[in-house]
Amino acid sequence: MKDVAARAGVGLKTVSRVVGGEPGVTPETERRVQEAIEALGFRRNDSARVLRKGRTASVGLVLEDLADPFYGPLSRAVEEVARAHGALLVNGSSAEDPERERELVLALCARRVDGLIVIPAGDDHRYLEPEIRAGVATVFVDRPAGRIDADVVLSDSFGGAREGVAHLIAHGHRRIGFIGDHPRIHTATERLRGYRAAMAGAGLPVDDSWVSLGSTEPGRVTGAATAMLAGPEPVTALFAGNNRVTVTVVRVLAGTSRPVALVGFDDFELADLLRPGVTVVAQDAAALGRVAADRLFQRLAGAAPAPARVELPTRLIPRGSGELPPA
Amino acid sequence: MKDVAARAGVGLKTVSRVVGGEPGVTPETERRVQEAIEALGFRRNDSARVLRKGRTASVGLVLEDLADPFYGPLSRAVEEVARAHGALLVNGSSAEDPERERELVLALCARRVDGLIVIPAGDDHRYLEPEIRAGVATVFVDRPAGRIDADVVLSDSFGGAREGVAHLIAHGHRRIGFIGDHPRIHTATERLRGYRAAMAGAGLPVDDSWVSLGSTEPGRVTGAATAMLAGPEPVTALFAGNNRVTVTVVRVLAGTSRPVALVGFDDFELADLLRPGVTVVAQDAAALGRVAADRLFQRLAGAAPAPARVELPTRLIPRGSGELPPA
Repeated sequence: MKDVAARAGVGLKTVSRVVGGEPGVTPETERRVQEAIEALGFRRNDSARVLRKGRTASVGLVLEDLADPFYGPLSRAVEEVARAHGALLVNGSSAEDPERERELVLALCARRVDGLIVIPAGDDHRYLEPEIRAGVATVFVDRPAGRIDADVVLSDSFGGAREGVAHLIAHGHRRIGFIGDHPRIHTATERLRGYRAAMAGAGLPVDDSWVSLGSTEPGRVTGAATAMLAGPEPVTALFAGNNRVTVTVVRVLAGTSRPVALVGFDDFELADLLRPGVTVVAQDAAALGRVAADRLFQRLAGAAPAPARVELPTRLIPRGSGELPPA
Repeated sequence: MKDVAARAGVGLKTVSRVVGGEPGVTPETERRVQEAIEALGFRRNDSARVLRKGRTASVGLVLEDLADPFYGPLSRAVEEVARAHGALLVNGSSAEDPERERELVLALCARRVDGLIVIPAGDDHRYLEPEIRAGVATVFVDRPAGRIDADVVLSDSFGGAREGVAHLIAHGHRRIGFIGDHPRIHTATERLRGYRAAMAGAGLPVDDSWVSLGSTEPGRVTGAATAMLAGPEPVTALFAGNNRVTVTVVRVLAGTSRPVALVGFDDFELADLLRPGVTVVAQDAAALGRVAADRLFQRLAGAAPAPARVELPTRLIPRGSGELPPA
């Protein structure tokens, strides 16, 4: 940065302004700085340098649903790490739309974020390769990147779901339903795989009508749960693939006369105060955010380790709903 | 924009790239475009023009707490309006720190957002005046701006709290506690004012020990509630100033033997499935976001009405906890 300032014949502060896209620089000065930058091969997104030189860094967090409380503690943890590094955090939401995710990520890059934490909606992130090469540190969280090699921090969805379903089996259930998110979502298929592994491990068959993947909108989930609970051989227990599904299932079960066991993936506020308390497979959402953000700031500080996959364990919390015997 | 392109001797697309801070423009071309812009008085943040000319607009939403579920539906509503206008939404959080709010708002402006929706943490927004003059459309939501004249969309905190406390009085309560957020927060003082108005309206005195304002952290709220419920003349009912307070009070009351009535400001997920169901004064968080975003996009489309204050009504939802008689 000093070299750029010397070559352009301006102060460090001016270089910092130009790099940061801040106002107060004449076009002529900006041109000189840009030329010096190009001549010296200083990249606008050389994040390590930016951090060291004291401009306020910013990192972007791309979520998939602003209204899912699972992302509250995750976002806050990322924000706390960012703040500890003197960096600003901006969030955006893909609303589970891969095209929207791409647009948002590239818009954040164009607006010069130094790093990105992405909860991906899409399964092809090759569009990010030029940005990563240009120095934008990138860490994926909750779900892995598609078709590129990048850091990812996620929960053990497979193991957690398997443990939750095994818990229902241990309490005597044989007909267990699984209601999950869209099959294109990595966590949804991993949790379904955990369900199937637990059933297979106990030698139990899985009827097609016991598995329902799709939108987590209340209407869809209510329909799926109601169908599984109807008929001559209804399921006696349900495994809910995430907290959005669980709260709707709780609502459906509150309206049924016969007790139905329930284990949900994700803990949620007040789960322990419902009657019965809701047994969950808890992820540590704050830890996901914290570990991902720590990794990001290591990269921003200049570390360049090979991309790694960090898997955090889940924790079964029995509270009553998962310990109900078959009706 | 056409005039800028003609004067600089470049295409419209190039002007759009320079204005949008996008890559792919040589420093020399960028300089020419910038000079043309200055010569013609075209402002980089002339949002109406930006929207009309088809660059992807972006709007910033500054929240105060990423982990407060109240902001989930609000954020999502803003996002839906933004998407309907083909614009991207970026969020940031002030974490209730006025300095952080200022830093974040200015960083978003430097990164060329076209408009801002702000849930303010601070009470002096004169720092925004240059940005607003430069064309950044700005709407405040949930709480008014301080020391500047700007659009604000908020709930009737005073009226809602007064109605909620009057509801408790109508069910026989005379000793009613109020636990709220920090007194520097507009909604906290408005709701306290509503509490006092309801008590005064019924000719009831308010003991100092029945009012507690401060952090909404569970420890602080638990201490406040426990103190009000202790002693020879405990309160028989509590009014909780927002959803963060309410969920902690629910937890405290779950551990008490004698029934205590409760009305909380803000609805929250599962409030109806608790036993007793929690009576709330509901705000329409999604409507707050939608109305604020509509207003913002009117301004971005070129409308320039005088700043207005829009107050949305609240709605009392009786569910059991607010209808318990005094113990």
